[in-house]
Amino acid sequence: MKDRIFRVNLNTLTTSVEDVPAAWAGHGGRGLTSTIVAAEVDPTCNPLGPKNKLVFAPGLLSGTVAANSGRLSVGAKSPLTGTIKEANAGGTSAQLLARCGCKALIIEGQPQGDTWYSISINQDGASISEESELIGKGNFAVVDTLSKRFDGKRGIIAIGPAGEMKMSSANISVMDPDGGIRSNGRGGLGAVMGSKHVKFISIDPGDGKVEIANPDAFKDANRRFAKALVDHPVSQALGQYGTNVLVNIINESGGLPTRNFTQGQFDGHEKISGETMHDTIKERGGKVKHNCHAGCVIQCSQVYNDAKGNKLTSGFEYESIWAMGADCCVDNLDHIAEADQIMDDIGIDSIETSVAFGVAMEAGVLEFGDGAGVCRILKEEIGKGTALGRIIGNGAGSVGKTYGLTRVPVVKNQAIPAYDPRAIKGIGITYATSTQGADHTMGYTIATNILNVGGSCDPLSKEGQVELSRNLQIATAAIDSTGMCLFIAFAALDNAECLPALIDLINARFGINLTADDVTNLGKHILKTERGFNEKAGFTNLDDRLPEFFYTEPVPPHNVVFDFTGEEIDTFWNF
Amino acid sequence: MKDRIFRVNLNTLTTSVEDVPAAWAGHGGRGLTSTIVAAEVDPTCNPLGPKNKLVFAPGLLSGTVAANSGRLSVGAKSPLTGTIKEANAGGTSAQLLARCGCKALIIEGQPQGDTWYSISINQDGASISEESELIGKGNFAVVDTLSKRFDGKRGIIAIGPAGEMKMSSANISVMDPDGGIRSNGRGGLGAVMGSKHVKFISIDPGDGKVEIANPDAFKDANRRFAKALVDHPVSQALGQYGTNVLVNIINESGGLPTRNFTQGQFDGHEKISGETMHDTIKERGGKVKHNCHAGCVIQCSQVYNDAKGNKLTSGFEYESIWAMGADCCVDNLDHIAEADQIMDDIGIDSIETSVAFGVAMEAGVLEFGDGAGVCRILKEEIGKGTALGRIIGNGAGSVGKTYGLTRVPVVKNQAIPAYDPRAIKGIGITYATSTQGADHTMGYTIATNILNVGGSCDPLSKEGQVELSRNLQIATAAIDSTGMCLFIAFAALDNAECLPALIDLINARFGINLTADDVTNLGKHILKTERGFNEKAGFTNLDDRLPEFFYTEPVPPHNVVFDFTGEEIDTFWNF
Repeated sequence: MKDRIFRVNLNTLTTSVEDVPAAWAGHGGRGLTSTIVAAEVDPTCNPLGPKNKLVFAPGLLSGTVAANSGRLSVGAKSPLTGTIKEANAGGTSAQLLARCGCKALIIEGQPQGDTWYSISINQDGASISEESELIGKGNFAVVDTLSKRFDGKRGIIAIGPAGEMKMSSANISVMDPDGGIRSNGRGGLGAVMGSKHVKFISIDPGDGKVEIANPDAFKDANRRFAKALVDHPVSQALGQYGTNVLVNIINESGGLPTRNFTQGQFDGHEKISGETMHDTIKERGGKVKHNCHAGCVIQCSQVYNDAKGNKLTSGFEYESIWAMGADCCVDNLDHIAEADQIMDDIGIDSIETSVAFGVAMEAGVLEFGDGAGVCRILKEEIGKGTALGRIIGNGAGSVGKTYGLTRVPVVKNQAIPAYDPRAIKGIGITYATSTQGADHTMGYTIATNILNVGGSCDPLSKEGQVELSRNLQIATAAIDSTGMCLFIAFAALDNAECLPALIDLINARFGINLTADDVTNLGKHILKTERGFNEKAGFTNLDDRLPEFFYTEPVPPHNVVFDFTGEEIDTFWNF
Repeated sequence: MKDRIFRVNLNTLTTSVEDVPAAWAGHGGRGLTSTIVAAEVDPTCNPLGPKNKLVFAPGLLSGTVAANSGRLSVGAKSPLTGTIKEANAGGTSAQLLARCGCKALIIEGQPQGDTWYSISINQDGASISEESELIGKGNFAVVDTLSKRFDGKRGIIAIGPAGEMKMSSANISVMDPDGGIRSNGRGGLGAVMGSKHVKFISIDPGDGKVEIANPDAFKDANRRFAKALVDHPVSQALGQYGTNVLVNIINESGGLPTRNFTQGQFDGHEKISGETMHDTIKERGGKVKHNCHAGCVIQCSQVYNDAKGNKLTSGFEYESIWAMGADCCVDNLDHIAEADQIMDDIGIDSIETSVAFGVAMEAGVLEFGDGAGVCRILKEEIGKGTALGRIIGNGAGSVGKTYGLTRVPVVKNQAIPAYDPRAIKGIGITYATSTQGADHTMGYTIATNILNVGGSCDPLSKEGQVELSRNLQIATAAIDSTGMCLFIAFAALDNAECLPALIDLINARFGINLTADDVTNLGKHILKTERGFNEKAGFTNLDDRLPEFFYTEPVPPHNVVFDFTGEEIDTFWNF
């Protein structure tokens, strides 16, 4: 299949298939969504208005058999942050889109009336249909219904009620190989899809295949690449305990944000840890290992059953468990799992929403620790779009503003995730400087600050943190362009075989000759493209700061504050 | 009384009296609040945190017998806009503060616990007391209770429940000569006072008097000044019909924003007009004329009674009536009056709140035209701080964000007031460029665009609008420093005797020799001081823009859009 650009216009209800412009040809995934958004979206536009565009792009290697290459990037101007945004997720759709020859799907415009639509993708391009049956339905009902409607053969990308209601933390949900839900979680991209009245996208590649320029070299490189992944101890820990292996590790470091970021350790950490989760899953007959897309060799996902042995949730990740757990002081893993499942169904970012609950607890909306209350509010308020539901569904910043609080852990209005930037300073640099608001995945310094992957860097010292975050953010922007899961980074940082094998994969796929320098330059180019968009949207260095309380409230047990000056933070951009 | 700076620190619960720094000596009112905020407040601070400061300053002529000189300026970093902010109001407090020798009162810091305080001002300075009886009470109960507690002898500045709850549109209320309420309305300064746990300030000047350097010259200048005011036909119309004389005039112009800014004329305009209000007041035995402070010769206020002849509200202004009326399609003046009274009691800006209701109506929270519903929500939701109440109480931008709307009439998150910037283009330049978010009083081009005061300038043409707004914003910044009501501007623009008389008043008061150029330079200096603060807070030219829909949705009956480019708007700052 020749790669092309598929375009859907909701103003005119028309679609087109276009050749790939030369300037976009070397891009995929995040690099491509950010390039297209920067080229075609007015940075000052209203993110929920007709001028915003929603761009879907599989990575450079998606649709091939390359290990862990099934991530789907989605980009737009974010209604949560006002910045450019890319969120990526697993599931089957990246691979299926690539097999349709769809290098990127651009959804633009906005219908005038109340009618909702779906978009269908195949090798010939996109088509638009009216949709009514599924409007108002949760993601699981959407996936169930469409699996029947389409004989289970298509990939599904959908929004839940939160996206329809244009909540700022609405995510975009992607069906995984088992009919579960994976999420392009952050930045409210589901609200952009909702603003365009697109309930779901289905993908049917038929017999479409991704062409490989040099199959033998590809096969060889993939063998080396996959071996590097499975050999790394962090990959192995992720397979055994999931990402939730981090609860005990981060708690031990004193950087586990607890009770709305007032403490760095959680008394109930054992009850929600990866080890406890692992044992509970085994005891109840769930799945300890599970892959979010075909070809994953790490398998950090899992299926978590309830006490009766029925599936409660899957893809139960550390950040969600930390946020609903430690940050909200909920030490009941079943409540957290139920909340996770409801958030998947409503289609709302579990980090943003859980941190918003932490802030709401500080505001007195409900008690810290009230897991049952969280589940009730998720279902009865957020899911139904009540006033309280909308306040929380618009994220942590919304709750903080609405209740007049000052301890509101957001950067560029996006909730700070699972690592306290006072006790783990490198990640604070990432939160501050990320082009997309607070996001650990933009430059995961935890690897080096805590896990001693890629060297070591004292988390409590300022020394080396800016450089660490810079190098990781550059590498991440490149990795996010390949379709690779970010968890390849552990092997890439420690194993000298890994990155060359990845570059060989790309070269074999396209018949080109990229070097390691080219990949670094790609990462830099992407970051600068994103920052350029943000500057034209009105952002300045002054937005690259943490909230005031991180500078003034020491966090136990280390009793440290975030002590980087603005000038020190701004050196991040010296490249 | 020698002028001094009174300072109250809520961190330490201490007060001090300080000499006036030389750099502040020539300032009063807005010039002084903005100078102090720019000098002492970190522009990047959280407006509701301990680093913000709340500054009260009478004008240069306040406390004298100069006509219309009783306006009180209050400044801080605004929790609504994030910009520097000055809001001014009538009432007795500016005159009483001046008679205490208080050139400015600076309230800083933030108490740690739950205790609330009051501040008492006299000639010797400020003192702090704990307060419990009045916490949670509305402004009318506060004024009633304190009038008894203090034998009716003191000036009162207070916040209502909205300020206590730190809602972003909470105002600061100032008791008027009849125990009514005047409001420092815009920008949520009541939330700043609430964040410092100050429920009220009482002012007792005893036998304090403002010194006049040259009493004879002062008396002569005041006679000329007052004559210019009372001779102007707009002053006379304001005395007869109140500011609400504008409903029919602005409706006729096609610039009366109606149904959340989707139309420029309101079918029900006659029912809510100044003429109808005038007749209703007479019929029901209210007061057609009423002054908000001693010495006012215009008397645009009034007392509006209900059908039984009991006082329903006072200070019933055009902007409030337009906003709750045309913008919300409520054509029942009694409902609007009741809403006005409730907003005064809760202590919430009637422009911000009413425009927020218009947006909430578009969101489907209640029907357009439902005046009874508005009153119910004001009392039961906003007054009680429910989730819906907080959404609306945080202003039009909050409602728009919460419900994911795009037709949200705000600039720098402050609601656009009573003149559509598409049909009256000069005011659009003021909304865009004002240092304080959308605010008609910053540069009231309506005078020249519509009322032909100070010349004429076609409201539908772009020609001359930037210059008009610039000249008026400069003049306004200076007038706001004198303690004068802005309504002196009509006479100042048309009558060559007026401005020299005002300058003579200032010169006679202080024994100095200001010229007209000095006054213009003062205005320019204030605007640049304010803009400098905003730039350090992260604002750029890109914030000096109207919302997208004003550029894309033509407003009937003229079917025009706001068509200034960014570059054209930015020429405003060429001075």
